[in-house]
Amino acid sequence: MSSAATARVPEGDDGSWSPPQHRERFRDAQVGVSTESRLPLASGACHRSLLMNEMDTETDSSDLNSATIEKSNLCGVLVQPRELRVLLRSVPAPAPGQVRVHVRNVGICGSDVHYWWHGSCGPFHLHDPMVIGHESAGVVEALGAGVTTLQVGDRVALEPGIPCLHCDRCRQGRYNLCQQIRFFATPPVDGALARYVCHPATWCYRLPESVSLEEGALCEPLSVAVHANRRAGTAIGSLVLVLGAGPIGLLSCMVAKAFGASYVVVTDIDDTRLAFARAHASADAVVNTRDLDEGDAALVVRQAFGREEPDIALDFRSGGRICLVGMGAAEMRVPLVEASSREVDIVGVFRYCNTYPTCLALLASGRVNVKPLITHRFLGLEESSLQAAFETARTAANGAVKVMLTIPD
Amino acid sequence: MSSAATARVPEGDDGSWSPPQHRERFRDAQVGVSTESRLPLASGACHRSLLMNEMDTETDSSDLNSATIEKSNLCGVLVQPRELRVLLRSVPAPAPGQVRVHVRNVGICGSDVHYWWHGSCGPFHLHDPMVIGHESAGVVEALGAGVTTLQVGDRVALEPGIPCLHCDRCRQGRYNLCQQIRFFATPPVDGALARYVCHPATWCYRLPESVSLEEGALCEPLSVAVHANRRAGTAIGSLVLVLGAGPIGLLSCMVAKAFGASYVVVTDIDDTRLAFARAHASADAVVNTRDLDEGDAALVVRQAFGREEPDIALDFRSGGRICLVGMGAAEMRVPLVEASSREVDIVGVFRYCNTYPTCLALLASGRVNVKPLITHRFLGLEESSLQAAFETARTAANGAVKVMLTIPD
Amino acid sequence: MSSAATARVPEGDDGSWSPPQHRERFRDAQVGVSTESRLPLASGACHRSLLMNEMDTETDSSDLNSATIEKSNLCGVLVQPRELRVLLRSVPAPAPGQVRVHVRNVGICGSDVHYWWHGSCGPFHLHDPMVIGHESAGVVEALGAGVTTLQVGDRVALEPGIPCLHCDRCRQGRYNLCQQIRFFATPPVDGALARYVCHPATWCYRLPESVSLEEGALCEPLSVAVHANRRAGTAIGSLVLVLGAGPIGLLSCMVAKAFGASYVVVTDIDDTRLAFARAHASADAVVNTRDLDEGDAALVVRQAFGREEPDIALDFRSGGRICLVGMGAAEMRVPLVEASSREVDIVGVFRYCNTYPTCLALLASGRVNVKPLITHRFLGLEESSLQAAFETARTAANGAVKVMLTIPD
Amino acid sequence: MSSAATARVPEGDDGSWSPPQHRERFRDAQVGVSTESRLPLASGACHRSLLMNEMDTETDSSDLNSATIEKSNLCGVLVQPRELRVLLRSVPAPAPGQVRVHVRNVGICGSDVHYWWHGSCGPFHLHDPMVIGHESAGVVEALGAGVTTLQVGDRVALEPGIPCLHCDRCRQGRYNLCQQIRFFATPPVDGALARYVCHPATWCYRLPESVSLEEGALCEPLSVAVHANRRAGTAIGSLVLVLGAGPIGLLSCMVAKAFGASYVVVTDIDDTRLAFARAHASADAVVNTRDLDEGDAALVVRQAFGREEPDIALDFRSGGRICLVGMGAAEMRVPLVEASSREVDIVGVFRYCNTYPTCLALLASGRVNVKPLITHRFLGLEESSLQAAFETARTAANGAVKVMLTIPD
Repeated sequence: MSSAATARVPEGDDGSWSPPQHRERFRDAQVGVSTESRLPLASGACHRSLLMNEMDTETDSSDLNSATIEKSNLCGVLVQPRELRVLLRSVPAPAPGQVRVHVRNVGICGSDVHYWWHGSCGPFHLHDPMVIGHESAGVVEALGAGVTTLQVGDRVALEPGIPCLHCDRCRQGRYNLCQQIRFFATPPVDGALARYVCHPATWCYRLPESVSLEEGALCEPLSVAVHANRRAGTAIGSLVLVLGAGPIGLLSCMVAKAFGASYVVVTDIDDTRLAFARAHASADAVVNTRDLDEGDAALVVRQAFGREEPDIALDFRSGGRICLVGMGAAEMRVPLVEASSREVDIVGVFRYCNTYPTCLALLASGRVNVKPLITHRFLGLEESSLQAAFETARTAANGAVKVMLTIPD
Repeated sequence: MSSAATARVPEGDDGSWSPPQHRERFRDAQVGVSTESRLPLASGACHRSLLMNEMDTETDSSDLNSATIEKSNLCGVLVQPRELRVLLRSVPAPAPGQVRVHVRNVGICGSDVHYWWHGSCGPFHLHDPMVIGHESAGVVEALGAGVTTLQVGDRVALEPGIPCLHCDRCRQGRYNLCQQIRFFATPPVDGALARYVCHPATWCYRLPESVSLEEGALCEPLSVAVHANRRAGTAIGSLVLVLGAGPIGLLSCMVAKAFGASYVVVTDIDDTRLAFARAHASADAVVNTRDLDEGDAALVVRQAFGREEPDIALDFRSGGRICLVGMGAAEMRVPLVEASSREVDIVGVFRYCNTYPTCLALLASGRVNVKPLITHRFLGLEESSLQAAFETARTAANGAVKVMLTIPD
Repeated sequence: MSSAATARVPEGDDGSWSPPQHRERFRDAQVGVSTESRLPLASGACHRSLLMNEMDTETDSSDLNSATIEKSNLCGVLVQPRELRVLLRSVPAPAPGQVRVHVRNVGICGSDVHYWWHGSCGPFHLHDPMVIGHESAGVVEALGAGVTTLQVGDRVALEPGIPCLHCDRCRQGRYNLCQQIRFFATPPVDGALARYVCHPATWCYRLPESVSLEEGALCEPLSVAVHANRRAGTAIGSLVLVLGAGPIGLLSCMVAKAFGASYVVVTDIDDTRLAFARAHASADAVVNTRDLDEGDAALVVRQAFGREEPDIALDFRSGGRICLVGMGAAEMRVPLVEASSREVDIVGVFRYCNTYPTCLALLASGRVNVKPLITHRFLGLEESSLQAAFETARTAANGAVKVMLTIPD
Repeated sequence: MSSAATARVPEGDDGSWSPPQHRERFRDAQVGVSTESRLPLASGACHRSLLMNEMDTETDSSDLNSATIEKSNLCGVLVQPRELRVLLRSVPAPAPGQVRVHVRNVGICGSDVHYWWHGSCGPFHLHDPMVIGHESAGVVEALGAGVTTLQVGDRVALEPGIPCLHCDRCRQGRYNLCQQIRFFATPPVDGALARYVCHPATWCYRLPESVSLEEGALCEPLSVAVHANRRAGTAIGSLVLVLGAGPIGLLSCMVAKAFGASYVVVTDIDDTRLAFARAHASADAVVNTRDLDEGDAALVVRQAFGREEPDIALDFRSGGRICLVGMGAAEMRVPLVEASSREVDIVGVFRYCNTYPTCLALLASGRVNVKPLITHRFLGLEESSLQAAFETARTAANGAVKVMLTIPD
């Protein structure tokens, strides 16, 4: 396999950075078809049959050639825990209201890694093979009937959830709480790590010229940060404490600053990540809580804020808000009397709604710069490449923060 | 001692219901002075010295006569845990901006009982003798300099907290979160169970004609219920679950209905209280959770709501709110991931702010009827009477819900 | 022509109140077909051709018989200003997601009358024949593909606007501002005054048992009042001034009280309507402003509120809100500096969103009683009956407030 | 006239107004007019007579010397329209809760100019001589009893309004609507253009080190812009139209950008100001509407926004807000039906509340840079200097935007 795939590659234009030889090699490799290259993941026989099963029309695998593969739909499929395959599926035709997007960038999220490694994430469990990935952007390639808001060639970010639009929550504007929502790579719904994805035009956002496809893919985690800061009420002058300097924590820090927070302190147990938070996420101060007990941690955090206490996030300032993002322990011991008696609200955050236009505004204006988060890039929809990418994301090897996959043209 | 004091007395006009013989008996009793009547609480000698110490000017107790007592300020003082005394203090003169109120009604709250029995409540600890009581109403008797909003003779409810008005929280309208607030009967601040109390005119609310002084005193717990329902966002059509059918729970149920809730379910472990909730607090349904485990309780509650789940209070409906009122265990195990992933907010409630005008509107319009809550009335500022009243409140004997003290003219 | 149609009929059960002979007569009459009954509106010939044109399949009018008419779709069509016809259209089949509703009640709104008389309403102009009516309720008769939330036989109120659900405003929960919204009887979209209407199940609300079909039809104007009071922020204790005692004003008054307003004053220039407001809409006070100049009117209104000034609706109390409902003069002279310098917000109201569940909760709980508003009822989809009904609504003859049409089974 | 007065300089009570004969003497004194006498402040002779009249205790004029004057309180007093004098008043002692501030900077606001030129501003009329000025900052020089939040030597910005803190509006956090508020230089309350001013510590805000006294003085107009943007709901991604490029318009533009607005268009009829808006106030686009009729102006503005329409300020985008700042014509013709039918709210703005901490956060963080607004600086509390400063502000001569007075140590 190409060693280039696991190396950090320089950031480049989304359309053209893979050099010609890489493309050639990619074609030669026939990822997901030549059995020798998929080792140790599975035997070729097994793979072929899978592959055939996935195809809409029966095709003997021996009939497959480069041309077929190029026209077909390569998909990164989690067939069972720790078994990620690249399979060929037929190219989908966009239904009315949908567009077919040639996906170009897919970021790897902690939940993707969790599904890969454990086969589940929170209450969701993998039962059948599922295309992975939900942080995606690409180029519109075909329009379904009735689509007027997009054109072929438009570069778009894909909001991964498709709510029903008809239930009370949807009609009230909180569509993230729709119980019928279908969300990329949340079992049993297929995700976006595929050459071609059909998606409702409603949930595809045209990128401003100055926003790259990689940034478009990162609108997804950025949305989490925007929604969290909205629910937390971050505004000019807010004091914010962010616990954890993973991608969501870093983005939450950036967005808090963009929303006007005066002072943001980030905690983590990893100095590298904390240094990253200062260097790239606009953190005003950082605290390593690894060797601190709870009381000392609180003390050091307060010192980091100077005389004042934070009013948002893990905030014990009266009238403040605690905003829970992501999945921790199912149950936590919470000093509820303390929180309640200061009217500190504990605010839930589940994904996001109505955030993509804001994300694009943040990116286009330069108020938020997500590019430094992408520490590792992997090229190509090949099993070895996916494997390496997911492993990098899982282990956070070499200071990995956000791992980005690029699907060649 | 007057046996009438411990008997239930019929509800009456706040100014005139004590018949003449009661008054006479009250005078004879010379509560807090005649040693024989204070047994078994303390010896007379001890009491006298205390009494002297409390007086601004040295007065030999033997000089005290009925006239002196009548003109003096009888106060219900918690001198140490489980030792409630009636002491004489001098009649205070209203400072500028204050009025002197002749207190006529004081309700007993769970926190009063807690201080009495344990000497503390939540983070507050009794160190020195303190006048008890914070649910009060009375008649304006004297005006301090500069008071223009009230007149002598006005019947008023006393909001018990005096915030600084100058800090950020006060200026933002959330004065209940003021860190300098002085609150009746929260150590070391004296409370309102006294014949005479001086209080800022700002925090005295004139009662509409149709609102009795007893109802005025209950504006305090009613304020908790109003504030909780405001923070919970109760509105027309809300489904509300109230846990616990104590006075605050009952009032929260009433207020939820007055705010337009479609359906309110109340839970408790006492059938009498639940019957009370149905009969007097407008509960649509009640559930006794005594013999249910957590899962069964949840199931029965959902059945009580019919097909739908509540969206306010202990609410697991997506987008709902949990509103914590009062002091429970300092820490609770909370299904935070579950709550967060449905964007169920956990909203703290600490006392209240800007509620008294609303309470008076609710009472004057008849939307809320708090009178049935007063199950027991005790007449007179006598130690035996206070003792009996607090014991009734503590044990909830004879189905006691709210115990009301009346201070004779 | 049935004289019964123009008489006030007693309020009754929506399904069964028309006596048998009326039904017979209705069937005999073949409304909209026998030319003599339509004079002076049009000649039979003209009508027939129209009728044919409207039918999906060519049918010679002479072929029409009772059976055909009964199975066909009688529609109240505004063919041009002041020309309201009853035409036969084919019975529509519900598209996927739609249900076919047998419409039973249609209320007449001021905008319906305006279209009828002037051919326009605000910015909307009638260019082609259009079915009139948008306050409607009926019984589900057939389900389109994929409908699971309703069943045949369900009694439903029809929310008349069908927003796109895909634009920003829709996704944010303010679907009334959708620029693609299709709204009953807003040119060129056909309305609901028809025997059969196909409508998305999403916008059909099942009526609680205790809510009649007539009340279901009135959910539409009631929604305007609910939305206005929401935007105005009416709450417990609000003081509200309602200008105008037409149906929307009366409903706004009722809803203000149901939302907890302490005191609502209604103004109008018609004593009958004001008496109605007191008797049936819970108005606390009314003011006839007919012979008052602007200053005097303000004075009298303030007197009506006692010492206090209203804080909602035409409100000059600082921090209050003015809420504009309905269409008045296109431009008004507004004391903007005065309003602005008191931070009185002028809040626009355009139709409503997310109101129907609230309306049904208000009706089912009895908090609002809209029945007295229906002062006149007209039976049957006959031209003479429609004519009389619209004329009654237009002239407000005989104290008409809300005119209700009933379509027989 | 002193040329120094017009040069730019480097950054850096009130009991007894004089009766007519005093005025005569005052006129004779012509303080601050004879150039030779102004070095540095004034000559003793002409100054003395004034000083006697103003002093609380009788003092023979011959006793006065420079030292006395220096210790006394020079005030800029508007004695009648177009007559601005510098008078000597006694140095006030801080009452309890107050601090005495040595005022160092006072900005001139349009309302100051209006009072000077017309003797009134909106509903407020000058009846008696009044110290002018309300945009001020200085150094704490003495503490009244009970002041603990400030220390002598603290550099502070003075919020000019002193609300009662006790009325409903104050307690609800909207103290700008307090009807008892006393506001600098709003008749009959004296302003801040004086060497020494006593002011409640509550309304004095310590400046962060990085914020200059001039910037502190500009917290006042900046507060108007912050409050307006808060009420307008400006947030990340907002499109904002600002009408008028005066100081408030420019600050509103800056603050809109700081609050995250994506695109702000500023209109004016003066190209210089518009150029200023682009250069110094972060305007994304500007439109000169001088030669445009209403329709054309709207068209050009829309073009300036590209395809989209603004959603805040003079905004006809559905669901947007119009925010009225400052005093225009008492009545305006407003397209209310148009506004209402798009639910465009017209939001009043009266001064501000709870803004100073936000202003200081904006300034300290560099998110807003108000320094370029100060186009002209005048040194010294001399009549000629004040006259020149006010004339510069009134005529906006030489591109004047904000005129800043500096009071020497």
